[in-house]
Amino acid sequence: MQSWRKRASTKALIQPIAPASQLESTLMHRWSKLFIPTLREAPADAVVASHQILLRAGYVRQLGAGLYSYLFLATRSINKIVAIVREEMDRIGQEMYLPALNPAEVWQESGRWTGMGDNMFRLKDRKGADLCLGMTHEEVMTSIARSEIRSYKQLPQIWYQIQTKFRDEPRPKSGLLRVRQFTMKDSYSFDLNEEGLDVSYKLHDEAYRCIFTRCGLSFVAVEADSGAMGGSQSQEFMVYTEAGEDLIASSPDGQYAANIEKATSTLVTVEDLPGEAAPELVHTPGQKTIDDVSAFLNVAQHHQMKTMALIATWPADAKGVVKTKAVVAFLRGDHQLNEAKLGSLVAGAELRPMVAEEIFATFNAPAGYLGPIGLDSEKTLVVLDKALEGRANLIAGANKEEHHLRNVTPGRDFKPTVIADIRNINEGEPDPITGQPLRLGKAVEIGHIFKLGYKYTESMGARVLDQNGKETMPIMGCYGIGIERILTAAMERSAASMGLSDRGDIRYALPASIAPFQVIVTVTKQSDATLAEAGETIAKALDSAGFDVLLDDRDQSAGVKFKDADLIGVPYRVNVGKKLVDGLVELVDRLTGNTIECAVNEVVPQLQAAIKQ
Amino acid sequence: MQSWRKRASTKALIQPIAPASQLESTLMHRWSKLFIPTLREAPADAVVASHQILLRAGYVRQLGAGLYSYLFLATRSINKIVAIVREEMDRIGQEMYLPALNPAEVWQESGRWTGMGDNMFRLKDRKGADLCLGMTHEEVMTSIARSEIRSYKQLPQIWYQIQTKFRDEPRPKSGLLRVRQFTMKDSYSFDLNEEGLDVSYKLHDEAYRCIFTRCGLSFVAVEADSGAMGGSQSQEFMVYTEAGEDLIASSPDGQYAANIEKATSTLVTVEDLPGEAAPELVHTPGQKTIDDVSAFLNVAQHHQMKTMALIATWPADAKGVVKTKAVVAFLRGDHQLNEAKLGSLVAGAELRPMVAEEIFATFNAPAGYLGPIGLDSEKTLVVLDKALEGRANLIAGANKEEHHLRNVTPGRDFKPTVIADIRNINEGEPDPITGQPLRLGKAVEIGHIFKLGYKYTESMGARVLDQNGKETMPIMGCYGIGIERILTAAMERSAASMGLSDRGDIRYALPASIAPFQVIVTVTKQSDATLAEAGETIAKALDSAGFDVLLDDRDQSAGVKFKDADLIGVPYRVNVGKKLVDGLVELVDRLTGNTIECAVNEVVPQLQAAIKQ
Repeated sequence: MQSWRKRASTKALIQPIAPASQLESTLMHRWSKLFIPTLREAPADAVVASHQILLRAGYVRQLGAGLYSYLFLATRSINKIVAIVREEMDRIGQEMYLPALNPAEVWQESGRWTGMGDNMFRLKDRKGADLCLGMTHEEVMTSIARSEIRSYKQLPQIWYQIQTKFRDEPRPKSGLLRVRQFTMKDSYSFDLNEEGLDVSYKLHDEAYRCIFTRCGLSFVAVEADSGAMGGSQSQEFMVYTEAGEDLIASSPDGQYAANIEKATSTLVTVEDLPGEAAPELVHTPGQKTIDDVSAFLNVAQHHQMKTMALIATWPADAKGVVKTKAVVAFLRGDHQLNEAKLGSLVAGAELRPMVAEEIFATFNAPAGYLGPIGLDSEKTLVVLDKALEGRANLIAGANKEEHHLRNVTPGRDFKPTVIADIRNINEGEPDPITGQPLRLGKAVEIGHIFKLGYKYTESMGARVLDQNGKETMPIMGCYGIGIERILTAAMERSAASMGLSDRGDIRYALPASIAPFQVIVTVTKQSDATLAEAGETIAKALDSAGFDVLLDDRDQSAGVKFKDADLIGVPYRVNVGKKLVDGLVELVDRLTGNTIECAVNEVVPQLQAAIKQ
Repeated sequence: MQSWRKRASTKALIQPIAPASQLESTLMHRWSKLFIPTLREAPADAVVASHQILLRAGYVRQLGAGLYSYLFLATRSINKIVAIVREEMDRIGQEMYLPALNPAEVWQESGRWTGMGDNMFRLKDRKGADLCLGMTHEEVMTSIARSEIRSYKQLPQIWYQIQTKFRDEPRPKSGLLRVRQFTMKDSYSFDLNEEGLDVSYKLHDEAYRCIFTRCGLSFVAVEADSGAMGGSQSQEFMVYTEAGEDLIASSPDGQYAANIEKATSTLVTVEDLPGEAAPELVHTPGQKTIDDVSAFLNVAQHHQMKTMALIATWPADAKGVVKTKAVVAFLRGDHQLNEAKLGSLVAGAELRPMVAEEIFATFNAPAGYLGPIGLDSEKTLVVLDKALEGRANLIAGANKEEHHLRNVTPGRDFKPTVIADIRNINEGEPDPITGQPLRLGKAVEIGHIFKLGYKYTESMGARVLDQNGKETMPIMGCYGIGIERILTAAMERSAASMGLSDRGDIRYALPASIAPFQVIVTVTKQSDATLAEAGETIAKALDSAGFDVLLDDRDQSAGVKFKDADLIGVPYRVNVGKKLVDGLVELVDRLTGNTIECAVNEVVPQLQAAIKQ
């Protein structure tokens, strides 16, 4: 054996780095050699634009529900997005890579082993030990921090990874928008105190803006709900698109933007009904709804109190005990309950409406006539929406079959447990900053930054010594970017903005920074040797100039080639055709729709100018 | 809603690519800001060098059995390896990214759902559907090819991915050498015929050599067993190290190298015992072993036939029927059975030795005295090792308690079902090319290329039309690289070559191409402002010159800093110390152990020269 050891010369270990010439030589791609399986039509179940594009253009193929194989084009785009994300994240943090396969123990410590429910994929290994596929990595990151970080001198830390995540999504749909396996950039910050967390949070905010801008996305940063996870501040990065499943509110000037779960407005004051009278019973036979009562008593909806009875249920504690609490929420008659806002008042619990039997059993009142007077605000969480604060002479349920009360005045006639904003804002209400009318729009979330607080460092026992030698808990932030969402959001936005073609086909083009290729050189007639050669020359010139170029050298009609080029979303196209006899080619900017003729040797500078614009 | 659509100007979609200045500005790393948790001692269970290094130098931390969190240093090295692999693979194929989570159906089609046994992680989703974590992706790749490739015109294809793989390894050990989650570059080729496969295989061979060379590894390409999977040619890329679990044979000049599973030798002819006599019964009471009989009959071991009785068991077929076959192998008395070679004769089956009762029940002969004469070579697979071909007058079992036979001559006295090489070669035997003495050594596999054949295209029904419009099966190759293995193999080799320090510490350094940093600038006294400033200047100059540089700006003793720099394996170190008053710094080449003094402004050119060497 030893003789072999001797053969291992140290020289062999330090191989030269490959010479620059080799490293820099890129491969120019020829369509004829590539696997880009385009389809004439998208499958019927592909409804949203990005789903149709991804399938038709041969970006992806479905393997199973919510599971997609990324083919050549998708992988190229995603690699470009990942490179941008990595570069910007490297400015503020350190990259790691944690196991996707997690032992149950670390999740049991944080309490999320049960908390994650059916959304988490669970499995057993050959020895019967419980494992799961990590949905996020707070636990693993905290376990590393707990073992390795002992002193304030080692803080702050920002650790990130770019990794495959698994989530057993109950209803996978919309192509890559709602899947069971996806790529996420997740990062975690550890700071000594809140001021430190403010800095880590701000760094992420800036990095994210830079990332999304470089990816060519127009996005809005919105205030987001942070209640349920116990955090203190939270912001989502959203892209407006009808394919999104979030609803966001924003002011026309963009100064204010928030997820509907969090959005507030400055309400226009409404007039109360006049008088100082005490509550008075009114017979309202069969009048159960707000509309009914408005008509029956001839009052406005905003003169009424809407009553919602719910039950909050917390997950079983270590002893298996399940805690519940009755919740009654009062809103202005014309307002709607916002479950996320109400949920933040019962952190960690699930909320569901009570059925009539439960209402009767709990409050001894009939459903439809439940009201505020006489509720035990210690036993029951009685929540008064902020919009009812200071109001007087309202109509409310009387806790008696077929009766309401007039002249109910919160504060005087009953005391809520808490007054809080628990309503949905409505389109057109004044924004809370400048009072302009708020607009609502659907959007897709591409990133999220979140001041997480002490949830994990507390439950998992991470402690450091501060400057005074005192043991203290580090405070955490967590931050995520959905890598594939960047690609799909870009497709959705472009398709919405460019509209359908005359034939009814989706039109779109990707931002040059994340498109699988920046420019395509289309030889309109490959059998014409002069055209073929010119295409080759132009593509090589673009390649040498640093463009990511695709040469369409297939023996297909110009029509097919143009259509395919459009289908794969390359933003710039050079058509090498008949005008070559005059030394000219066509340069198509897919995004503006502009086409110019230009001399062959002007292609590179023209495109350089276009891309820098 | 529409109003929002209008706000989505097309301008926003084509954001400028970030200006070059921004893209090119790299981040110079300062140790004081990094998370590199070095340890004074490796945990007791870390036996092999790479395992000790990975833990002590803060490259990784263990999360569970065979599950490691890659911290900053490991992630940097692995990203560099991945970049090299990607660049070389892009020259020959197209990158994809397939789901790690696979529906059972696709594995059932190929028959591997049952074939993979306990090595495959299996799970159920919320609807109870069976899923697994893919160990390799032949099935998914073949399913894509089956759906999308219809014509010979679309061939050849080489598709690769760089992806996390999961394997429920029964005994995870040796740090990253045997784990349950790891990163693999796997690729798959589809060709019209064997000539095409030869080309795809050759392209991979060349790409792999280039990859490993660029990663600074000294490797051997060895012939490997390809029998069990039904392939026709197979080659492993191996790195000699005592930490490896493979045994390989090679000639001193390296012209011949093969895995022990496949290695052959040119045997020196041995003299047969004289005479022409027929087989003759000899009483050999209590003489069961080769040694016993040699002594008892006063013959050499090579005059004897060694008998091995085994059972081959094939996995249950679609109807649940399990096929078995008795196998009797005859070897020269001084030779050892090679199970891989014998296994290739019963493709797909598992082999195990018969117990005495089975031998008696099957052959009506006592264990220890089983012999060739009278065996039914149709019912039983009777295998004669090639080394016994042409031999005469051998001693063999007589199928009778306490008796052997003399004068047994294969061919004359019995007919084997097959004559094949089924023995292990021994160290020192002549290599089959030039006849030099073979050497055996332990090695770790870093890559494998394999002519897979028709196994998956046949079982999964992938068909294309050839040039004549005839339906034909594409032929496949599969190819793998263990990404982490490249890092660990480099650590093992360097540690073996550099030996221990005076204090008994492992010494090693990584090749510059895959080290987390190429060069470290160590400020020997950070509190000395002149030294600190000079360190900063030198590090910035190296950074600007394109080096991946780490500045050790920690307020620690020079001794601690030197030790830590060694520990993380950076190949070049610049010591900024007392000699700075004379304008000099020390430049340490960790691999050669050479230290030179050099002027501050000579650091960059000196290191450029060193790295190009």
